[in-house]
Amino acid sequence: MFPALGYGVCQNCTMAKDVNPPRGNRDFLPLEKRKREQVLGVIVDTYRAHGFQQIEAPVMEDLARLTSGQGGDNEKLAFRVMKRGEELDRALAAEAGADNLADLGLRYDLTVPLTRFYATNRAKLPNVFKAIQTGPVFRAERPQKGRYRQFVQCDIDIIGDATELAEVELLNASLDALAAIGLADATIRVNHRVLLSANIAALGVGEGDAASAMITIDKLDKLGVDGVATEMEGKFGAEVAAKAKAWLESIAGELAVPAELASLFAIVGARHPGKLRFDPTLVRGMGYYTGQIFEIEHPGSGSSIGGGGRYDGMVGRWLGQDVPAVGISIGFERAVDLVDDTVFGAAGGLVLVLADDSVDVLAGALGLQAELIAAGEESVRIERRPKKLNLLLESMAEQGFGRFAMVDAAAIAGGVAGLVAKEIG
Amino acid sequence: MFPALGYGVCQNCTMAKDVNPPRGNRDFLPLEKRKREQVLGVIVDTYRAHGFQQIEAPVMEDLARLTSGQGGDNEKLAFRVMKRGEELDRALAAEAGADNLADLGLRYDLTVPLTRFYATNRAKLPNVFKAIQTGPVFRAERPQKGRYRQFVQCDIDIIGDATELAEVELLNASLDALAAIGLADATIRVNHRVLLSANIAALGVGEGDAASAMITIDKLDKLGVDGVATEMEGKFGAEVAAKAKAWLESIAGELAVPAELASLFAIVGARHPGKLRFDPTLVRGMGYYTGQIFEIEHPGSGSSIGGGGRYDGMVGRWLGQDVPAVGISIGFERAVDLVDDTVFGAAGGLVLVLADDSVDVLAGALGLQAELIAAGEESVRIERRPKKLNLLLESMAEQGFGRFAMVDAAAIAGGVAGLVAKEIG
Repeated sequence: MFPALGYGVCQNCTMAKDVNPPRGNRDFLPLEKRKREQVLGVIVDTYRAHGFQQIEAPVMEDLARLTSGQGGDNEKLAFRVMKRGEELDRALAAEAGADNLADLGLRYDLTVPLTRFYATNRAKLPNVFKAIQTGPVFRAERPQKGRYRQFVQCDIDIIGDATELAEVELLNASLDALAAIGLADATIRVNHRVLLSANIAALGVGEGDAASAMITIDKLDKLGVDGVATEMEGKFGAEVAAKAKAWLESIAGELAVPAELASLFAIVGARHPGKLRFDPTLVRGMGYYTGQIFEIEHPGSGSSIGGGGRYDGMVGRWLGQDVPAVGISIGFERAVDLVDDTVFGAAGGLVLVLADDSVDVLAGALGLQAELIAAGEESVRIERRPKKLNLLLESMAEQGFGRFAMVDAAAIAGGVAGLVAKEIG
Repeated sequence: MFPALGYGVCQNCTMAKDVNPPRGNRDFLPLEKRKREQVLGVIVDTYRAHGFQQIEAPVMEDLARLTSGQGGDNEKLAFRVMKRGEELDRALAAEAGADNLADLGLRYDLTVPLTRFYATNRAKLPNVFKAIQTGPVFRAERPQKGRYRQFVQCDIDIIGDATELAEVELLNASLDALAAIGLADATIRVNHRVLLSANIAALGVGEGDAASAMITIDKLDKLGVDGVATEMEGKFGAEVAAKAKAWLESIAGELAVPAELASLFAIVGARHPGKLRFDPTLVRGMGYYTGQIFEIEHPGSGSSIGGGGRYDGMVGRWLGQDVPAVGISIGFERAVDLVDDTVFGAAGGLVLVLADDSVDVLAGALGLQAELIAAGEESVRIERRPKKLNLLLESMAEQGFGRFAMVDAAAIAGGVAGLVAKEIG
């Protein structure tokens, strides 16, 4: 029994090599992968329950599209995929530089692909398109703690609804999803680009300088009020800086929600009391936001764990017409780090240990396995009995298996009803 | 209510553009994505039930690893990712050719990354590692019907078990997974590379020519017996060709299972009668197979829908020691095409239509939505009432929503218990 007929001699066994994933990339071992799949599954299920629909766009998009200005600073971080065959030969011969050698790129976010997806498939989508997208995105960042070159994003977007109903649904669904993965303490800071622009204009900053002023105000967390004032002085002079300082110092404690955001706060607050907070200094980096903007925070994380906003100008770009859109993204990598390992990723499972190498015992174990699975057992693993059973059981416990049962002739005769499963350890 | 405060004028609306996914790549619309997720979920759940563990390796691997000879013909199809920054500048200045401009590549299968993953993480894995991997792989193939540049593979592998128990588990789990997605008619052709090599030697082909002979025999489906004999004659002369013809013609009907495969057929056959078929001419293209080889077939598909085999030499290559391994892959794209749309992808769902745009109705609808979800409703979608309700309902039916309910003051007062949901259409 168990002939190892094909088990030949290794031809290359002297070739031990460097065997790491590429820099900034990660392997996910079974228990971590399981936690990630569970958390992602709960988020997607919550969004689906709220009537959103999952879609998928390819990992690669045309490089020209990925570098057309929609992606902001992320465009510089796009991995470029080389042309192939004759096209590559022609590009090399032309000596037109590195840009001409690549035709495709890896997506650095899910928003730019979504706007392309919508333009491509609009005729087959409902008037108000409520999309869920989850998947890997890629950025050629300098690898550092907590920054990866491949990571998962988890977005919902509503395209085709210019009204605040879209914002209500996004915030409501996101807070439900966060609660479902155990992050009920998450809160969302809210601002509105129109309000922010008015506040910046009131400082005496001209319309053409508003974007530059936003970049400075966006550094408030890092620089503090005085640091922002100093940078404003350098950019726009002492008068603007003084007004900026006075404005920022006037912001303290729980602020009254402005009229423009009152109904959003009222409706979402009815289901999620105290979870929204108005922050007139919230900027959100991307240039494409046109309306309400959001940033998700959690007491367990020093930085935001997600965010989004309304970006009405962007989807229409590929269509030649105006299309309202708003989206919010849970930063999956940061969120999953906050999720309790004992709630998600806690694997169960039963190990059936073959008492001997006979065909009868193996066939019996396969029969028991099938019956146990049919009865709802989540994971039933068959293992040969090693010389040291306790080493096997320790290893299985490390992999999340909680129980084991010996399979011998008596166990097979007794069937599932008579099976004695013992706790491991 | 519903102010469209941020909905500005589109700045780029004259720029209608080509908006397709890159050549050979696909968008997945909601119903198709749902079917794919459901089918993949059932396969993964089945494999997990059999004690396999899901893992994940990155989409990119070092290009040197992807082109080191393990990947066979697929190596030529690897998408190459360009170097970045100073490294790219140096490579361009060196004028060392296209190969020197790329440092990473997109994986073209899940097997080469698995062998790297195992070498990297071996100390944290159980002695017998039973892996599930699903995910996108990428090949720069000439796009044609049924061939895509990004597609999903769905693999299970057992590393560290030299015995036939590994093959038994792979085949048993695969047949269960196929049955679980409605493909119970799938069968698996089985051969053994050692038997195949012996048969080829018996034709008078020298050991050094065995691989070339396998390539010819692998074309039996396309060329027929005479075509194979002709190609064998061209390669090895008339005597070998005559013996090959006689051998192939002697193979007909249900063949007796050779002693080397008898216990595999007996044990798997006990749970899945008649699902394995011995085929002495089965080759499987990849050079790395050393033992049993498998190919999955289904009456609904003209080509195989998966396959695998034992590849004992390959994993050890990165480790400097011999490691037995065997794997099988369900060709997800072909399998999902065979799966009945009415069983998988058949979405349910309830649409709550807001009778008016008041805050009270929206708040009430959000409350009903939460209660309905809590009560187990799978997908509850909120929609504003358009001028033509029937157009909305038609669109929702196309998206798989089966019922709707109007939400007005009376419906809110009546709560979930009193809600009247009507079938759409």
